[in-house]
Amino acid sequence: MRPLTRPVLAAVLLAAVMPLTSARAATRTPPTIAGPILNLDSTQFFFEHSAAEMNGETVDAYIDLVARSGIRTFITCVNAQKANYASRVWEHDWSGYDPKGPDDQPVLRYLAPGAIAMTRHRLEAAKRLADEGINLHARMLARCRQQGIGAWVSVRMNDLHDCLLEDSSLLSTFYKAHRAAGQLRAPYRGGAWWADRGLDWEQPDVQEHYFQLVTEQLDTLDLDGLELDWMRFVFHFRPGHELEGGRIITAWMRRVRTACDQAAVRRGHPVLLGVRVPSRPETARRCGLDGAAWAREGLVDLVVPTPFWATTDFDMPMTEWQRLLAGTGARLAGGIEIRYQPVPNGPAVMMSPELTVGAALPVLHDGADLVYLFNYDPLPLERMTTANGKTPLWSAKSLGTVFHALQSEAALAAQPRLHAVTFHDIRAPGEPADNPLPATDTRQDFQWPPGCAIRIATGPKPAGRAAELRIEYDAATVGSEKLRVFVNSTECPATPGGHGPGRTYPVPNAVLQDEAQVVEVVSAPEASYHIVRLELFIPGAN
Amino acid sequence: MRPLTRPVLAAVLLAAVMPLTSARAATRTPPTIAGPILNLDSTQFFFEHSAAEMNGETVDAYIDLVARSGIRTFITCVNAQKANYASRVWEHDWSGYDPKGPDDQPVLRYLAPGAIAMTRHRLEAAKRLADEGINLHARMLARCRQQGIGAWVSVRMNDLHDCLLEDSSLLSTFYKAHRAAGQLRAPYRGGAWWADRGLDWEQPDVQEHYFQLVTEQLDTLDLDGLELDWMRFVFHFRPGHELEGGRIITAWMRRVRTACDQAAVRRGHPVLLGVRVPSRPETARRCGLDGAAWAREGLVDLVVPTPFWATTDFDMPMTEWQRLLAGTGARLAGGIEIRYQPVPNGPAVMMSPELTVGAALPVLHDGADLVYLFNYDPLPLERMTTANGKTPLWSAKSLGTVFHALQSEAALAAQPRLHAVTFHDIRAPGEPADNPLPATDTRQDFQWPPGCAIRIATGPKPAGRAAELRIEYDAATVGSEKLRVFVNSTECPATPGGHGPGRTYPVPNAVLQDEAQVVEVVSAPEASYHIVRLELFIPGAN
Repeated sequence: MRPLTRPVLAAVLLAAVMPLTSARAATRTPPTIAGPILNLDSTQFFFEHSAAEMNGETVDAYIDLVARSGIRTFITCVNAQKANYASRVWEHDWSGYDPKGPDDQPVLRYLAPGAIAMTRHRLEAAKRLADEGINLHARMLARCRQQGIGAWVSVRMNDLHDCLLEDSSLLSTFYKAHRAAGQLRAPYRGGAWWADRGLDWEQPDVQEHYFQLVTEQLDTLDLDGLELDWMRFVFHFRPGHELEGGRIITAWMRRVRTACDQAAVRRGHPVLLGVRVPSRPETARRCGLDGAAWAREGLVDLVVPTPFWATTDFDMPMTEWQRLLAGTGARLAGGIEIRYQPVPNGPAVMMSPELTVGAALPVLHDGADLVYLFNYDPLPLERMTTANGKTPLWSAKSLGTVFHALQSEAALAAQPRLHAVTFHDIRAPGEPADNPLPATDTRQDFQWPPGCAIRIATGPKPAGRAAELRIEYDAATVGSEKLRVFVNSTECPATPGGHGPGRTYPVPNAVLQDEAQVVEVVSAPEASYHIVRLELFIPGAN
Repeated sequence: MRPLTRPVLAAVLLAAVMPLTSARAATRTPPTIAGPILNLDSTQFFFEHSAAEMNGETVDAYIDLVARSGIRTFITCVNAQKANYASRVWEHDWSGYDPKGPDDQPVLRYLAPGAIAMTRHRLEAAKRLADEGINLHARMLARCRQQGIGAWVSVRMNDLHDCLLEDSSLLSTFYKAHRAAGQLRAPYRGGAWWADRGLDWEQPDVQEHYFQLVTEQLDTLDLDGLELDWMRFVFHFRPGHELEGGRIITAWMRRVRTACDQAAVRRGHPVLLGVRVPSRPETARRCGLDGAAWAREGLVDLVVPTPFWATTDFDMPMTEWQRLLAGTGARLAGGIEIRYQPVPNGPAVMMSPELTVGAALPVLHDGADLVYLFNYDPLPLERMTTANGKTPLWSAKSLGTVFHALQSEAALAAQPRLHAVTFHDIRAPGEPADNPLPATDTRQDFQWPPGCAIRIATGPKPAGRAAELRIEYDAATVGSEKLRVFVNSTECPATPGGHGPGRTYPVPNAVLQDEAQVVEVVSAPEASYHIVRLELFIPGAN
């Protein structure tokens, strides 16, 4: 087993005079990683730009926008099931695509009709850039260096976009062969659920397939860090095989760690290793994605607990993560997603600036070093400002303000923020559901009091500012005006004249607690309710 | 802030030559505590023995039975809301009780009629022992020393037995005054739920009241360790004030820690400090009972995650606890309760020998140092063997076998064991429910597959032995014979000819995994089900 400490920098500095292994016993200092971190999806750049725009300057301009918006570490993703560049070890996205061929060629014909044109646009853009002799990632990383921001690459470890289709530009030959052979993760349920269609990481050829792509990045790119994105798409083993599978992944990661260390020696600077894992440590472990164990073994420099996709998780246990990583030298970043969905399978909206602050502030307050954004590409967010006549969620100004504020807790705490209650959208197989919403009026019994209680994470107590609690009841709710609402045991009456399904409850500053508030809705005769959204708004500091 | 390390033993040895504080920087070695640990309720001994039996030999005989049964650390509880011995700082249980008075005297008249005689029996026994000049605990601890087992005392920090009654021998004057003044934890819900009636530990007089009782133990008894039982009854703060309250408790515990260290110097041996806290670390922290933080600060030597009362918790995250305590020098024990209740507020039974092994084995396997038993007093368990004509759950033989086996994982793993699925019976205010049972047939959607999945913790994989999965469906279940059941992705058909609501599914040894199994019940047309009990039986090694 590797020792707990793994000083990459020391290894680099000492490489000339002593073997790598003897340097590992030194005390490990945490690496320098600046936040916020932004992950760019492997398809996004080619959706956003046309083939005609494909040249090095377009790539540079994109990175310039990223840096200008306030991002301090940029991570470019190189793959789904294929590489999005001209890889020598994997197929690339435009493999099997004939630009002159018809719309019913194999990689297009199973798409929804509306998706064909945009897919052709993307594939032609990617192909053009490669034909120009430009590696997207090499160019991006170089420009990041010029801009003084961290330059990372992400590899997705089991991407399943389009996995329910017979064919698609996103499905690799390797994947389709495994699928045809019945070698996926859980074929016995009939394959209707996407997660049952993942590759099975207990299979050695799967491990080797991904190792090739990972080492190609280390061999060909000058990167500050490599991210292994285990959250695309989370489920890598036959149900019930996650713990055994986790040991296989850990052994595999030791190989990657060694490759990173070797790359660091070649490059003369650290090559860090990061992972994205489920938002709760025990869930992560039970998925075979034991981020805490990897940190304790000194395998990783950055651990990013994060939701999967359905919703930003407003209640990630960052204090617990921080404690589990203490002394390991690994940095902790909390992952924010672009969707906000209070109730599973219920309505979802895009994260607003206020929601982004509301999600990120507890992350930093409760113990994370950094904020990490996924699916927050600034280019579409900026363009949304002019896309239609409606009031846009984001503007270039608000984007810059929020992204810059994400650099520190103090800056974030001065922004207007909207804290929310969502759910953990990843559970390990067999873990019970624990969705806070919808919340209803439970009868008092031995175990629990009458009414309901909901905890909302809010980060630091605002200095001197009051807050506003916003509760949305469902349409079947009766008598919501009769309910008594308490925040931290103090009754907070509703603002008179509430309309529609939502009610607001002013919360005096003196009632607020640090880190989280407990909202209790106490039953009333002739009232019945379901809460489908619960938020706490805190205005910005003037 | 205190340093992370706190070497009691070193403090004792060095006390003559250097001040206590300078010894704290030394590396801390974990204290010696042997398991299993048994906690004895403050009323139990006086229910089990009559006033006529009250003498030192009866006390000694009881401890001899405890030691003989296999217990290696004994903890005697000194209080509920009153002391169960002749305290100089608190009322005692028989305060306000008139042995010659009628059944309608204040401390008796609100009891259920059937409880009066046994209460009088208990109070008279306790009074008699005190009148004989014997301190129950001093005698017990001395006998423990003679028997070579650990001798501890437990103080309950907020006992609420009988709190819904106007008066009772279990209610203190201190408590009743707080209640009359409306100074309890959550009076605003009307007081119908017991937990709303706890004392509020943010109040300084509450803190002092308990500090007096704690220091009396340290001043008057020669003990190996002092336990602070925060799980009686868990909720010590106004809802929403738990985190702030937790800081108050932590400051209070520093005073107790100092008092223990001073007692250690006086006694010439370590006086350890232990705590009982909720079964999950983040729940514990959110209850203001941050066992991991106390260990990290060097305040405690023993942390006992445990359920409250309703049911033994068969899925306590011991790996996570072990990691959080790593390097602190604190020992970790998993708490087992005497009740087994698969569904909240559903049927409950007493833990059998097989269930006790099934609960304890994962505790040791997953990272705890010790097993801790609550409400497992061996005397009634032994007496049950002759109490009626039915087959008893326990015999003197099985009790000795199981208690001795609880000393080590290897011994436990050779016993027949029944693993089960229960629920976490303590959640912090506002934490959502996450009860695994009843489990039903969910439709497949984006988030989850069709059917249901249940994880069952099982400890080490048995060498060479097959297992039997036992599922009980509720009475409304239709077509359970059509359901397909998978264990770790392998289909396990039911034993033919199942009868009634239960079905059994043999599980080959090769299918079993280490630590936990994932059971999936896959839906079938024309079938609908609710699972109300799920167990895995593994026979003993021959």
